[in-house]
Amino acid sequence: MDLEQGDRVQIVKNDVVYEGIVRPSNTEHIVLKMDSGYNAGIHPENAEITVVEKKEAEEKTRFFKPESASTKQKSDLPKVSILSTGGTIASKIDYRTGAVTAQFSADDILETIPELSEIAEFTGKVVYNVLSENMKPEYWTELAKTVSKEIENGADGIIIAHGTDTMMYSAAALSFMIDTPVPIVFVGSQRSADRPSSDNAMNAICAATVATSDIAEVTAVMHGTTSDDYCEIHRGTQVRKMHTSRRDAFKSINSDPIGFVDYSNRKIETISDYTKRGTRKLNVREQIEPSCGLVKFTPGTSPDVLSHYIDSGYRGIVLEGTGLGHVSTDWVPEIERAVDSGIPVVVASQCLNGRVCDRVYDTGRDMLKAGAIEAEDMLPEVAHVKLMWVLGQTDDFDTAIEMLKSNISHEMTSRSLC
Amino acid sequence: MDLEQGDRVQIVKNDVVYEGIVRPSNTEHIVLKMDSGYNAGIHPENAEITVVEKKEAEEKTRFFKPESASTKQKSDLPKVSILSTGGTIASKIDYRTGAVTAQFSADDILETIPELSEIAEFTGKVVYNVLSENMKPEYWTELAKTVSKEIENGADGIIIAHGTDTMMYSAAALSFMIDTPVPIVFVGSQRSADRPSSDNAMNAICAATVATSDIAEVTAVMHGTTSDDYCEIHRGTQVRKMHTSRRDAFKSINSDPIGFVDYSNRKIETISDYTKRGTRKLNVREQIEPSCGLVKFTPGTSPDVLSHYIDSGYRGIVLEGTGLGHVSTDWVPEIERAVDSGIPVVVASQCLNGRVCDRVYDTGRDMLKAGAIEAEDMLPEVAHVKLMWVLGQTDDFDTAIEMLKSNISHEMTSRSLC
Repeated sequence: MDLEQGDRVQIVKNDVVYEGIVRPSNTEHIVLKMDSGYNAGIHPENAEITVVEKKEAEEKTRFFKPESASTKQKSDLPKVSILSTGGTIASKIDYRTGAVTAQFSADDILETIPELSEIAEFTGKVVYNVLSENMKPEYWTELAKTVSKEIENGADGIIIAHGTDTMMYSAAALSFMIDTPVPIVFVGSQRSADRPSSDNAMNAICAATVATSDIAEVTAVMHGTTSDDYCEIHRGTQVRKMHTSRRDAFKSINSDPIGFVDYSNRKIETISDYTKRGTRKLNVREQIEPSCGLVKFTPGTSPDVLSHYIDSGYRGIVLEGTGLGHVSTDWVPEIERAVDSGIPVVVASQCLNGRVCDRVYDTGRDMLKAGAIEAEDMLPEVAHVKLMWVLGQTDDFDTAIEMLKSNISHEMTSRSLC
Repeated sequence: MDLEQGDRVQIVKNDVVYEGIVRPSNTEHIVLKMDSGYNAGIHPENAEITVVEKKEAEEKTRFFKPESASTKQKSDLPKVSILSTGGTIASKIDYRTGAVTAQFSADDILETIPELSEIAEFTGKVVYNVLSENMKPEYWTELAKTVSKEIENGADGIIIAHGTDTMMYSAAALSFMIDTPVPIVFVGSQRSADRPSSDNAMNAICAATVATSDIAEVTAVMHGTTSDDYCEIHRGTQVRKMHTSRRDAFKSINSDPIGFVDYSNRKIETISDYTKRGTRKLNVREQIEPSCGLVKFTPGTSPDVLSHYIDSGYRGIVLEGTGLGHVSTDWVPEIERAVDSGIPVVVASQCLNGRVCDRVYDTGRDMLKAGAIEAEDMLPEVAHVKLMWVLGQTDDFDTAIEMLKSNISHEMTSRSLC
């Protein structure tokens, strides 16, 4: 069937009915923008496809290619590398058109968001091509290497287009892996909603603004509100996706964001300290140990899940406890067994906000006595990434414990008595 | 050693040094209010105890017993049962004095918070005596039975004093277990901070106000802000502890609270619909199946943790996925194996806010195809409690699935297309 961008089609596959407008696709999948605002990618195999309405003439303008946007690039602009990490729908910037591009060049981007050419000179590279939820720790190592190479080759800033599902994990990983002299900016899009143009383009433009700024940190730049007013600049170790679908899903936890990008004038306002461009030398420590478990404690959960991790040869465990960092008393012997086996156990809190303090109550003190380490005010997910990274850096238990207790990349704020 | 309430003492035990003011204790533990505002309970065995300063004369007044507060009770006031569920420090209301009482009577409470006697006529009962983090699903069954008995015996309202760590789990459990004709109010205290009087007394007074109101729901009543201005009335299935230590840690998620209690005048303002007193007949379905696992997905986590739950004879699994409710594609075969083995798999989101929607992306569709059920906008923790409760109600897989997909007690708001 000859589908054109802009056609409204109905696709029935595996008893599921999809209806929406055909969007550009560089893969075999047909990409539909559905009325809900979401995109869906459907492989045409065994699918019944009906054209409901051919595209209207005016629809064509949406996909109109601006006149040689790339020629507008000025060579005196800063150089920014855009690295793509995902090849499917959510894993990349949809840009103004809601388009999905599995492979993309700087030209592709400038065509869809011509404003970018005023900010920097871009080069594009596809690092890998996975669904955000299929991200693996090993890919962070690959990504860190690529970022490092781009910086060595003269990039003044890095933009990493990333699916939003696991962006916080990847941003934390790169925060631990790279001491960077230039900005490294994660950006994604939550959804196109009814206004397909807004979310993606604004995030990309704000990300480019940060990538050319003096904020030499690993950050995530995403919508600050549900309006198109500003983006927030979150630190890679302090950011969390706090909503399944809202555009302002990303929030800094236990800290303010580094600052904001005003979309109307592309001005950055900072409200937190940050490392300035050129202050640090590039230093990459990209090794990681993926065999680490995160266990969320809930009432009545048997400690046998801990036994599973210990006996399966895992090298580290993060416990996501209740309140100040508690698990049931009957978990304590397994915590002790883990630590005695050389497996670090880090305790974070499922409250997300606030600081773990295991010195107040009996259970917490028993956990500390068994060898558990407090994650302080570190997010459980960041504690998990940090543990993987620390165990990738050292095989020595005591060194690992010391690194886990130290602030490496703003993942924990300075210890206060609790 | 002869310690008196109000003495400042230093206790060294297991190389940990505690210093603070001695508080009342009905157990063998010495209870100290530390300068941080926290209480610590320390068993005197093998502890070195030094009195730093004997209590001052004025300190005595703190523990002064108000003149026969209980005699002020008027018999025409509503009858409220206060049920205590925890015997240690955090598990109970500390009241004005910061006191810890392992067994307590209505008189004990009225002595410390005399304002309560203006609100209701109280009876007190200790249901069990565990640390909040040691709460087990079986105890919820016990609690539901006791609550039900109190209502049958004429209680006009129930207050459940509960540790804050797992209050949300217990509140969700009772929401599923009991159709109540009267208010059932969970209350606790986060910490006494520098103003030991405020947190506990205000929460208790607001809880009593709700317990005597027409809000016949299972609720949690806790500080709405860090000031002593009002408490929020959260629905038992929509509340979550969102901070380790702040007094306003409890938040309604994916919904507004039912309303507020103004502390200054004890007036209730409601902003959501609720079931009114006397509308429902008492109905208790207290059975529970504790063998349910909650698995939080993080990048790189092997599906072997799912295999563990399947092969260990667990009866149900909640997956806390990323974003709209995703896990890695390599988890899908184990999801399918679970469902094929008659183990329901419910998918919630670690974003907490927003709605799970597995129909948008390939991975989600594969998960649904494997038999996973979307938790809609239900909190992962509530999904876990619901799963345990549902499997306590029925052994039939299809009935369980149907119940899991239905709104039982406001745990999910009506389905919108995603």
